[in-house]
Amino acid sequence: MVVLGIDPGSSITGWGVISKAPSSGWVTMGYGVIKTDSSAPFALRLSQIFRQLSKIIHDYKPEAVAVEQLFFSINKKNIILVSHARGAALLAASEAGVPVAEYSVLQVKSSLVGYGRAEKGQMQKMVKAFLKLKEIPEPDDIADALAVAICHINSEKMNKIKGL
Amino acid sequence: MVVLGIDPGSSITGWGVISKAPSSGWVTMGYGVIKTDSSAPFALRLSQIFRQLSKIIHDYKPEAVAVEQLFFSINKKNIILVSHARGAALLAASEAGVPVAEYSVLQVKSSLVGYGRAEKGQMQKMVKAFLKLKEIPEPDDIADALAVAICHINSEKMNKIKGL
Repeated sequence: MVVLGIDPGSSITGWGVISKAPSSGWVTMGYGVIKTDSSAPFALRLSQIFRQLSKIIHDYKPEAVAVEQLFFSINKKNIILVSHARGAALLAASEAGVPVAEYSVLQVKSSLVGYGRAEKGQMQKMVKAFLKLKEIPEPDDIADALAVAICHINSEKMNKIKGL
Repeated sequence: MVVLGIDPGSSITGWGVISKAPSSGWVTMGYGVIKTDSSAPFALRLSQIFRQLSKIIHDYKPEAVAVEQLFFSINKKNIILVSHARGAALLAASEAGVPVAEYSVLQVKSSLVGYGRAEKGQMQKMVKAFLKLKEIPEPDDIADALAVAICHINSEKMNKIKGL
């Protein structure tokens, strides 16, 4: 099963593609960040996210896209920016016909570390260990994207994909 | 000048296309709503908005898309839903190469009624008067979309289109 994890943001969007097969175990196929041009109009920045994710989906052909649910603790200005970027990310998936699974922060942390209040550093170490990476990927957006992809593969059922 | 006004929402998105030429005055070319299937996965609902707006842009060939800026008074859950839908709307414009102009509620009200604290009913009457419509369009999302399109045509300069 090939899964694309995405950590969306209007400035930086992290992404990571992983797979797991009974024979080969965990495989990290690729990861990176999409940085948008802060001097460009906002709608064009959304296009940059949409187009690059569309290309990644075309190149890696994931069977599912996994994203974290938004948490309400961030301020309204950031919620607006992230939600727009997240809309572009979800659209890249749905326009390519790939189902989207959403997980809460709690689910992602529980899936990787075993409990829901794990700290960021613990999460990053577990991402590194799961995928047998030499280093924790930088910036944080990449490890966050890989984490939600791992969570999806670890989950027996996919959330919120009714009808797909 | 042909302008598409959009009032985005995850359930209902209002749209209206108008033009104004020195010879012909205001012309209402078309308007309507895009309703998304509430039982569909959220990413597919964004696709419904994106695809239908893309078709409207293809059919009417607006020179600009006008949308209201989000106001912070609504709650975080609604901000998240509206921002995702708004991202889909902005993407439909930018993927079609059409510049996006954003206006505050204050600017829209001032442009139509002459002062920024006008009530909804006054706004709707002014939309009807400007465009010489027989009735106020229903639901409200359409009048809101037409209002921001009128605001754009009334404005001398387009906001936030640097570089386009």
